[in-house]
Amino acid sequence: MFEAADVTPRMLMGPGPSDVSERVLAAMAKPTIGHLDPRFLEILNELRGMLRDVFQTKNDLTLAVSGTGSAGMEACVVNLIEPGESMLVCVNGVFGARMADVAERSGAVVTTVSRPWGEVFTADDIKDAIADKGPFKLVGIVHAETSTGAAQPIEPISRAVHEGGALLLVDAVTSLGGMEVAVDDWNIDACYSGTQKCLSCPPGLAPVTFSPAAADVIMQRKTKVRSWYLDMSMMMQYWGRERLYHHTAPINMVYGLHEALRIVLEEGLPARWQRHAAAHDTLKKGLESLGLSYLADPAHQLPMLNAVAAPEGVAEAEVRTALLEDYSIEIGGGLGDFKGKAWRIGLMGESATKRHVTALLEGFSALLAGT
Amino acid sequence: MFEAADVTPRMLMGPGPSDVSERVLAAMAKPTIGHLDPRFLEILNELRGMLRDVFQTKNDLTLAVSGTGSAGMEACVVNLIEPGESMLVCVNGVFGARMADVAERSGAVVTTVSRPWGEVFTADDIKDAIADKGPFKLVGIVHAETSTGAAQPIEPISRAVHEGGALLLVDAVTSLGGMEVAVDDWNIDACYSGTQKCLSCPPGLAPVTFSPAAADVIMQRKTKVRSWYLDMSMMMQYWGRERLYHHTAPINMVYGLHEALRIVLEEGLPARWQRHAAAHDTLKKGLESLGLSYLADPAHQLPMLNAVAAPEGVAEAEVRTALLEDYSIEIGGGLGDFKGKAWRIGLMGESATKRHVTALLEGFSALLAGT
Repeated sequence: MFEAADVTPRMLMGPGPSDVSERVLAAMAKPTIGHLDPRFLEILNELRGMLRDVFQTKNDLTLAVSGTGSAGMEACVVNLIEPGESMLVCVNGVFGARMADVAERSGAVVTTVSRPWGEVFTADDIKDAIADKGPFKLVGIVHAETSTGAAQPIEPISRAVHEGGALLLVDAVTSLGGMEVAVDDWNIDACYSGTQKCLSCPPGLAPVTFSPAAADVIMQRKTKVRSWYLDMSMMMQYWGRERLYHHTAPINMVYGLHEALRIVLEEGLPARWQRHAAAHDTLKKGLESLGLSYLADPAHQLPMLNAVAAPEGVAEAEVRTALLEDYSIEIGGGLGDFKGKAWRIGLMGESATKRHVTALLEGFSALLAGT
Repeated sequence: MFEAADVTPRMLMGPGPSDVSERVLAAMAKPTIGHLDPRFLEILNELRGMLRDVFQTKNDLTLAVSGTGSAGMEACVVNLIEPGESMLVCVNGVFGARMADVAERSGAVVTTVSRPWGEVFTADDIKDAIADKGPFKLVGIVHAETSTGAAQPIEPISRAVHEGGALLLVDAVTSLGGMEVAVDDWNIDACYSGTQKCLSCPPGLAPVTFSPAAADVIMQRKTKVRSWYLDMSMMMQYWGRERLYHHTAPINMVYGLHEALRIVLEEGLPARWQRHAAAHDTLKKGLESLGLSYLADPAHQLPMLNAVAAPEGVAEAEVRTALLEDYSIEIGGGLGDFKGKAWRIGLMGESATKRHVTALLEGFSALLAGT
């Protein structure tokens, strides 16, 4: 028989999950009630309202998919694409590449446009791709590329996409709650996120929102969505007025996200973005004074995800292990092109504080001096 | 700003979720740590071991999918089926019908064999279907049909399926932990469950297990699995030795299931099955003494899901509402063919006790006398 799963608390400064507030953990431990209990349906309605506030949208079709952020990505793609339809995916890191893979599996005819890792796309990149290979039904792009730390400006891309007659899908997994994500003002048609980044809730739900134009596309599909579990028209029969059973909602995860969103809105979005920016500024100065350099284009650096090159001759994995074992601080390693070459330091939600930054710089400083 | 999501505790006696132990709720509130933290990886390994014990299998490919039971269904189907392959689905209720829908969306050429709601299948039904319309790559059947309360004997079906050269997929969402599910002895190739039924954990994870033969089929696919999120070969790169990032595991849900499985194994499987059977016997006597009759074939009645006909002239929804409001007891209504005509009473996991049965019978007795 195994012992209870006791865990050592960490300072979570990797690419997610981030530190979770005691308030959110306590909410997750509230008694489970039924997914059709009138009280639970009220909680779901409140959750939808708060998600709209955080996404800065009036979109009716806004809810939390019962899976992690990648399920949100798949839900957006698989509901908007019918087999044989065309999608352009912008790839400048792991998550753009993942979106292209998801799209191919959904039956899309996928075209990719690429930028080197760490760079971002311009409106001209999109216009050229549409002119050369378009038109496309859907264009997908990552707002905050967690593998590189690059922050993609969305507004110019959105104009280019809509001028080209396509719908715009944006990955806001890492950005939502930590920097501006203005779904309506930026004219985003579908947007998804995760809970374990700047919303500081444990992983397990994926907030998604669809514009009226995207919702129309879903409602007028000629073929069934390839995924039963992620079929938005069926999910809406539960989340909407009909309250038809689709699958059993993850009740206690919903409690957790409800409380996490309350905390986000209590702080206020602009104050929260400012806090992330301030923590990033302090971290950046400290890392650079240790001689570390960022991997993303400096003009487009995310506040909440800091990817820096591991210096030549430093065993990057050993530094991460020592940080975890000796300081109880978790940071991430590189993915894909950056595997073995980079550290990824997250300042997300509850982890975007001076206390976190100071503790990490202390640990880094001691470990790099010792190597 | 919304208030905190306080909830009134209920006695959960519907088709799931069931009551959740304080121990499981407390486990869910433990500090979130990283999905690659060595301690978390230990917890995952322990979880896999306990899932094997509960499924009564030695299958290496045993893990918990990051979604609810329906995600487990989809994961099994979509990984075992390549577009154009043939699948036979046995339909005698909502969940068999759902499996056929999932299979069609996965690209399977689906044949269904049907039995009236409440009845179960014989080996001859399967042999005849295979002779008439086979061969099939995969045959899917529901062990515990939650919409009717019928208990499907699996062993004779399994022999017929394997004699016919197919793989056997079994839905054990409602049965696992509440009655015998012997994956190895019954020669089941793929089996999935949910957490919120007889395991008494909140909804959000789907235990799945695949036999070596099924795992081979997955590893030798010619096409990519249609769902990126549910791709078992990629999931195993994280759950197995490689520990490659696929998606972020739902950390705190894993804590909850780990504790729920510890409770199941502390009690012991045979004792737990016996407790479910005893609670059912008491409930059945009580319901029949109130003049209520079961909908499923009496020879094949599940212990944990009791579907009874609402008497003529009784407003079944009003009784459910009154039970919830006046007694804080949740039961379920009918689905599909039984909508508006039935009550579904669950005795699952922590809810399979004399205390629950007594409270429900008291409430029912008072409300039926009053109607």
